[in-house]
Amino acid sequence: MIKVVIIGSGNVAHHLIAAFAKSKKVEVIQVFARQKENVTPLFDFNKITSIYTDLAEADLYIIAVSDDAIATVSSQIPFKNRLVVHTSGTVSINSLDSKNRKGIFYPLQTFTKEKAVDYSKVPICLESENETDFKLLENVAQSISNSVFKINSEQRKALHVSAVFVNNFVNHLYQIGNEICEENKVSFEILKPLILETANKLMSLSPKEAQTGPAKRNDTQTIEAHLDFLSNKNHATIYKTLTQSIQDNVKKL
Amino acid sequence: MIKVVIIGSGNVAHHLIAAFAKSKKVEVIQVFARQKENVTPLFDFNKITSIYTDLAEADLYIIAVSDDAIATVSSQIPFKNRLVVHTSGTVSINSLDSKNRKGIFYPLQTFTKEKAVDYSKVPICLESENETDFKLLENVAQSISNSVFKINSEQRKALHVSAVFVNNFVNHLYQIGNEICEENKVSFEILKPLILETANKLMSLSPKEAQTGPAKRNDTQTIEAHLDFLSNKNHATIYKTLTQSIQDNVKKL
Repeated sequence: MIKVVIIGSGNVAHHLIAAFAKSKKVEVIQVFARQKENVTPLFDFNKITSIYTDLAEADLYIIAVSDDAIATVSSQIPFKNRLVVHTSGTVSINSLDSKNRKGIFYPLQTFTKEKAVDYSKVPICLESENETDFKLLENVAQSISNSVFKINSEQRKALHVSAVFVNNFVNHLYQIGNEICEENKVSFEILKPLILETANKLMSLSPKEAQTGPAKRNDTQTIEAHLDFLSNKNHATIYKTLTQSIQDNVKKL
Repeated sequence: MIKVVIIGSGNVAHHLIAAFAKSKKVEVIQVFARQKENVTPLFDFNKITSIYTDLAEADLYIIAVSDDAIATVSSQIPFKNRLVVHTSGTVSINSLDSKNRKGIFYPLQTFTKEKAVDYSKVPICLESENETDFKLLENVAQSISNSVFKINSEQRKALHVSAVFVNNFVNHLYQIGNEICEENKVSFEILKPLILETANKLMSLSPKEAQTGPAKRNDTQTIEAHLDFLSNKNHATIYKTLTQSIQDNVKKL
């Protein structure tokens, strides 16, 4: 068994612990959390520590904490020349303390503690300083996911920015759709099949092929009617910005 | 059998014809199309006409043409006091010619000819001038979908504007995500599980609950790093606009 210590008790740590619990190759021998009770109850409470000097010896330390805590946490690990990785999409590999071997173990998915995730479909993006460490990370990642990628830091940055567009910003547009429905006393439920199909379409068509709507058709009459309808200034601004962007895109083709 | 004539040969007409082909209550007895060869090959070519005066007598005429053609097409129907509906999310019910009884049959889904649709899950929004016509529309709609709603014109407008946000604009954000990946030579495939999960999350969480990311966390360092990374001016503008909107939303809570 590959011995892993997980540092953190947030969403990413929670789902990693759950995923490794089913792995036959990897054992999470310890979890570090400042507040032990925040760790998923799935994990043996006696194997949780909140003292750095109690950290166990392991093949791999996965730091799954907030971005700005990664550097500090990595400097607290009381070992040298161990493999230490973080799970962030944005933080540089060089933020990790140099006394240990560095790597990235970035699961590209949106996690909520309350919602189960099929980890076998979660893409995991790996980076390391040398080939031996990469092999170990690959073994660990493949023990829980069928979708493992070698991604350098520049590519990881691009993925993370893209993820903000296709996840955070997309969800915010759902939120606006919800607000418009509420303001007009119509159930947001009616839009849910459309939301699912919009995402599903991408599995067989490129976003360019899948694009439809008044902006794409340059249907100025509908666009005007929609802007007229939108009493919320912020909604109108976003409508204009995205309509313009779609139209500029069409012209480029 | 309820006899229906469909006017149009676009995406909406195509999928309606396919859906009614499986209905035991509704028969499409004729399709009108200016160019017969544009009609789905699923439909008997001998039952297609391109001459208005050849339109057959039916219980219901469904006009599934582009928004700006609806008024003209409805005025060409050579009958009086028939039930005539259109399928548009935006066009007023009063655009239909007054010589016939008016109604709306608005399937709220994104259709592409090349991609099959499970019509039983497509929400259909109905409106009519009287109760008898509503009953007929409801029968027709329920023969192909499990999701049928009575929606007035104002609510339909709200749904259509919301649909632009959660479908057209969301797809455009997918497009931008794709562009960022291409520019940085990383596969857009890696983001597809995230795209699906972002949509799926909404089935159990509200968009407000599902919101994550640097804007929500007010993580200015990451936001600055992302804006630095975005060389495309248009991408940066959209990033700023949506980040601001998420932050304003968080403050409101």
